[in-house]
Amino acid sequence: MGKIKVGILGSTGSVGQRYVNMLRDHPWFEVVALSASESSVGKKYREAAKWVLDSEIPEGMAEMRIVKAIPSEMKGSGAEIVFSALPSEVARRTELDMAEAGLFVVADTSAHRMDPDVPLLIPEVNFEHLAAIEEQRKRRSGFIVTGPNCTTIGLAITLKPIQIEFGIRRVLVSTMQALSGAGFFGVPSMAILDNLIPFIKNEEEKVASELLKILGSYKGGRFENAGIKVGASCHRVCVLDGHTEAVFLETEKHASAEEIAKCMADFSSEPQRLRLPSAPERPIIVRNEPDRPQPRLDRLSGTPERAKGMATVVGRIRKESALENGIKYVLLSHNTIRGAAGNAILAAECLKGKGII
Amino acid sequence: MGKIKVGILGSTGSVGQRYVNMLRDHPWFEVVALSASESSVGKKYREAAKWVLDSEIPEGMAEMRIVKAIPSEMKGSGAEIVFSALPSEVARRTELDMAEAGLFVVADTSAHRMDPDVPLLIPEVNFEHLAAIEEQRKRRSGFIVTGPNCTTIGLAITLKPIQIEFGIRRVLVSTMQALSGAGFFGVPSMAILDNLIPFIKNEEEKVASELLKILGSYKGGRFENAGIKVGASCHRVCVLDGHTEAVFLETEKHASAEEIAKCMADFSSEPQRLRLPSAPERPIIVRNEPDRPQPRLDRLSGTPERAKGMATVVGRIRKESALENGIKYVLLSHNTIRGAAGNAILAAECLKGKGII
Amino acid sequence: MGKIKVGILGSTGSVGQRYVNMLRDHPWFEVVALSASESSVGKKYREAAKWVLDSEIPEGMAEMRIVKAIPSEMKGSGAEIVFSALPSEVARRTELDMAEAGLFVVADTSAHRMDPDVPLLIPEVNFEHLAAIEEQRKRRSGFIVTGPNCTTIGLAITLKPIQIEFGIRRVLVSTMQALSGAGFFGVPSMAILDNLIPFIKNEEEKVASELLKILGSYKGGRFENAGIKVGASCHRVCVLDGHTEAVFLETEKHASAEEIAKCMADFSSEPQRLRLPSAPERPIIVRNEPDRPQPRLDRLSGTPERAKGMATVVGRIRKESALENGIKYVLLSHNTIRGAAGNAILAAECLKGKGII
Amino acid sequence: MGKIKVGILGSTGSVGQRYVNMLRDHPWFEVVALSASESSVGKKYREAAKWVLDSEIPEGMAEMRIVKAIPSEMKGSGAEIVFSALPSEVARRTELDMAEAGLFVVADTSAHRMDPDVPLLIPEVNFEHLAAIEEQRKRRSGFIVTGPNCTTIGLAITLKPIQIEFGIRRVLVSTMQALSGAGFFGVPSMAILDNLIPFIKNEEEKVASELLKILGSYKGGRFENAGIKVGASCHRVCVLDGHTEAVFLETEKHASAEEIAKCMADFSSEPQRLRLPSAPERPIIVRNEPDRPQPRLDRLSGTPERAKGMATVVGRIRKESALENGIKYVLLSHNTIRGAAGNAILAAECLKGKGII
Repeated sequence: MGKIKVGILGSTGSVGQRYVNMLRDHPWFEVVALSASESSVGKKYREAAKWVLDSEIPEGMAEMRIVKAIPSEMKGSGAEIVFSALPSEVARRTELDMAEAGLFVVADTSAHRMDPDVPLLIPEVNFEHLAAIEEQRKRRSGFIVTGPNCTTIGLAITLKPIQIEFGIRRVLVSTMQALSGAGFFGVPSMAILDNLIPFIKNEEEKVASELLKILGSYKGGRFENAGIKVGASCHRVCVLDGHTEAVFLETEKHASAEEIAKCMADFSSEPQRLRLPSAPERPIIVRNEPDRPQPRLDRLSGTPERAKGMATVVGRIRKESALENGIKYVLLSHNTIRGAAGNAILAAECLKGKGII
Repeated sequence: MGKIKVGILGSTGSVGQRYVNMLRDHPWFEVVALSASESSVGKKYREAAKWVLDSEIPEGMAEMRIVKAIPSEMKGSGAEIVFSALPSEVARRTELDMAEAGLFVVADTSAHRMDPDVPLLIPEVNFEHLAAIEEQRKRRSGFIVTGPNCTTIGLAITLKPIQIEFGIRRVLVSTMQALSGAGFFGVPSMAILDNLIPFIKNEEEKVASELLKILGSYKGGRFENAGIKVGASCHRVCVLDGHTEAVFLETEKHASAEEIAKCMADFSSEPQRLRLPSAPERPIIVRNEPDRPQPRLDRLSGTPERAKGMATVVGRIRKESALENGIKYVLLSHNTIRGAAGNAILAAECLKGKGII
Repeated sequence: MGKIKVGILGSTGSVGQRYVNMLRDHPWFEVVALSASESSVGKKYREAAKWVLDSEIPEGMAEMRIVKAIPSEMKGSGAEIVFSALPSEVARRTELDMAEAGLFVVADTSAHRMDPDVPLLIPEVNFEHLAAIEEQRKRRSGFIVTGPNCTTIGLAITLKPIQIEFGIRRVLVSTMQALSGAGFFGVPSMAILDNLIPFIKNEEEKVASELLKILGSYKGGRFENAGIKVGASCHRVCVLDGHTEAVFLETEKHASAEEIAKCMADFSSEPQRLRLPSAPERPIIVRNEPDRPQPRLDRLSGTPERAKGMATVVGRIRKESALENGIKYVLLSHNTIRGAAGNAILAAECLKGKGII
Repeated sequence: MGKIKVGILGSTGSVGQRYVNMLRDHPWFEVVALSASESSVGKKYREAAKWVLDSEIPEGMAEMRIVKAIPSEMKGSGAEIVFSALPSEVARRTELDMAEAGLFVVADTSAHRMDPDVPLLIPEVNFEHLAAIEEQRKRRSGFIVTGPNCTTIGLAITLKPIQIEFGIRRVLVSTMQALSGAGFFGVPSMAILDNLIPFIKNEEEKVASELLKILGSYKGGRFENAGIKVGASCHRVCVLDGHTEAVFLETEKHASAEEIAKCMADFSSEPQRLRLPSAPERPIIVRNEPDRPQPRLDRLSGTPERAKGMATVVGRIRKESALENGIKYVLLSHNTIRGAAGNAILAAECLKGKGII
């Protein structure tokens, strides 16, 4: 009963490093191939990656040689699943090549998120969208599963139980996003110290369109968007990790703040039922202190140990009288764990747990 | 034609220091009295204030002796106007005492903001509310004029031209507020570095109630609230000065983003017509870059030199399709200049310019 | 074979919280008493402590009731050892009272550090100083063991192997110290953001005097200072945890940078030989990258898991030609773990490991 | 009596922007040519430069078209002086070309600093080194004058009066350098937030070699190094502007801390005697508070207005007993004003003031 062999595309970047770190001693998966850009091929991982996490590089991987991001290298190494953290300009083509070669691609890149036959998966929210894989397999021997933008994930997770229980008419979200969301070199210190940047390219559009697909349905071989009005204003603040979002919403049915808190705290879904290794016991942790969640204190929330950073933390749930059936709250989601590598690993565990691979 | 003599209550705190700094060489006002808490009385200002601005203490004031915050001291010094930056627990009583003793109190404290005969003044927005002074003078020989919370000011200024031209139905605002808003010792570095705090005590309530008074009318001796729905979510971020606010709103009449931008950029009011010394040439500066305003780059906006930090800077004006007649934008307002000392000084200039004193 | 029962004096402050956190599931010690200031007595720990670490409060301790910092409370709870993180103004008297009542006091406060019969202990550096306890026991039934200032500890640990192998004539150190060294409320964010403060009260004096005691000898019932010239310049920088120190030194015998690196990397001492639970496998970790150690990346160095933050990390060891037999290097030491609670816990383990208690 | 026409090489980078900003309304100089890299040629300055200062682009320059960094463009525009803020890889050749074409090059780049006929000029420290220009003019019709590394400048200025009055045997300096020293894009925020980097490439070597040239003599057509032992340890901290340096030194003759303070505070030199426009009234400002200088509060020190950021601020002057005739102090120097553009502009003023051009 060996482990499933996996490869990582784009393994040296900041999300790539999260994959490497989170797959350390994974009970189901074993990393057998690490790819990076041309100039790193052949180097040892420890030389190619400028490691920026505050843990050491997992021992097994430090000495692995970087390979090219091509299907033959992945297949040659025995990988069945490839996790993709590729730069967007190469992701589209490379991920397709991998899937056509029979590999199971799990990507947190944006390239194929909105494809009509590709699940945009948050395992707790829309695992039933995995049915779309059937469509893909008519055309290719492998398939692609994607995960949403780091800003969409925490929002979708917290909205899901509300959608189920009370229905949602309208969502307005204002974000305070962490620096790591732009990659290690993305935001110069001179640009952000004693400052904030009220703009993240394409982010507001992604949040709106992705959320509607995720909270929508998959029926008769087609995705149908949720009937919710969504608006976003996105901002970068001087925080290393952890996206904070201030959410205003209107429910269909009236709900008190206490009822919203309860339905969030009680929320549990397929990953919890399947006891997937990276599934947090509680997908949503509701805190009652007046001044939480805070990114530095709460971003690594989640039990068991392997699920640290996988839970979404919610606080300040309260009535918003400026809206009909109005509610507002603040959420926090770790953008490179739950918002990227962790969600993809959970998605892969879900594929295995549901017997799809 | 001498200058009007003024005193400063609470002159050693961080807002008090802003008063001292902004009244350096003021063309109309001359500082003759500085008060602070009991333990500082009798000390030289330079010893009593732990000066935290990056300019030197104005020479004339450095050697002044701190006096008690009592009417006799203010009157003894010849002061006619007293600016109040008192701590809230003593502001209510002391400000009243001063007004009853015949002094003209201009306060940026919260104590009397919602009093039924006290103008909550932003000179560009509601100078006609100064009529309420008449009511006060029936009861006391002096009077009190207050200015709003630092978070309300920039919001009210940017909403005013929209209210005039298109009407406003609903406003939702999510703030990213600067550290200086909590005072020099307010936020420990351990609490905010690599972090944000999604809570500021009573702030959301103040924004809503103050905004309705400011944008409302004063008729027949009574204030009447504006008929707008207002909701706020307030957050502290790691920025020294300058409150940034993400605003979502619904107008009464449909307006395009361009029309909103134009009415803001064209906005001009009584302080501009009266050419008050601290009035910014343009109360609202609209920027077209995709990533502005930013606190560190834009917080000291405003011309002439004396009005640096007095203009509100707006950017990212765009349609919000999740709301009917929806618009969203980002604003920036310097919280200890326009949001406190500067607004009060402009209010005092307005009293003089309108012939009230 | 039960665990040794311990109490924590000053358990709610930032160092107190480190004790609580590090004694979670300790193999030898069990926390039975938590004290704090008068106003907290009787409250549950979870209510009395404003918990600021990014882990949850250990379950057993969250519900414990705060007791007074008096010997009868400690003894009543069954505690044999009390760890002291008391504020300095009360530490002197209270620690003495505890020792006179027969308790074993392990303190990281400064009160008794320079007492002529009190060991100033870094277990890897001067465990033989524990002999001074004999002197104390002539006068009191318990005893006091102290640990040095957080800035002295990393310096002393890295100097020790050099002192043994090559001798040291002169040390000049320039520090870049973390915010937590001043306590949670110690440094306002307004004071340190985009800034540094080149002054820490009494710190330079402490480093010099403590270092000479620690690196000195204990013979014939007396401490004798080491014959080293020591100078320090101490500065606070905008880092949460981890003191960085730039060290210039002159050795007695000539040593190359490689020889210095080797003697540091090879250093091992009594805590390692005794396999104390909190002893890092290697007290000094020498890194070869040109730009390490860095506080955020290296402050939690140390294996096993329980020793995270207990190792001192050294880098940039190089020749300093401006000094005779000159060497310079950079060190990093976690100031609230190794520099406070962790060193004290290791000291207590040492007492047990050496059979003193 | 028209102004001298000047060009700026590398005008769009962060030092280039400082030149543009500081030459706004300069009484002696008028900017007539702005160059930048190939891709910017032909664009308006306001489009080519991503302006990062918190002032607006000077009006006259915003609309100027970027030209190539070649002598014919400079001469065609009428420029006599060219200030160079070129990237190091092109500086060597381009600066030489300019000088050979008869232009007067004033550079703060490192390319020609150590050339045997090029003055490495700090006008207050070694204006007599300008004599080396004679040597150059034997070989080329124009000439090159350079300024030192930003870390060397403040150190050299503060050492000069001590050297004159007491002599200096040995200097050890540990730096805490600002982010802007690495250029706007030089230090990623992810690398430095809650962190510091104890390494700046080649910086320690530059400080030592440049200091010896600057504090040395120029006699008989040759530079001779000062006979001082110099060692440095250089570190980057999370501060936008302003290099702080902790200096330990040994004087030749014994000097008390008070004597050192007095000789620094009294220091005045040729730029002050010539009343050059950018010369600070006092080159060294000695502060007596225990916790100054601090970068955010003191980096813009200097009068008159045009000299803001040109003074070096010193504090904490005290005896260092670990050295013979030992003294230590902390200095602060604005690294992109005095440490780069400002020093070069003052050098050009010096050329004019001394009648060299």
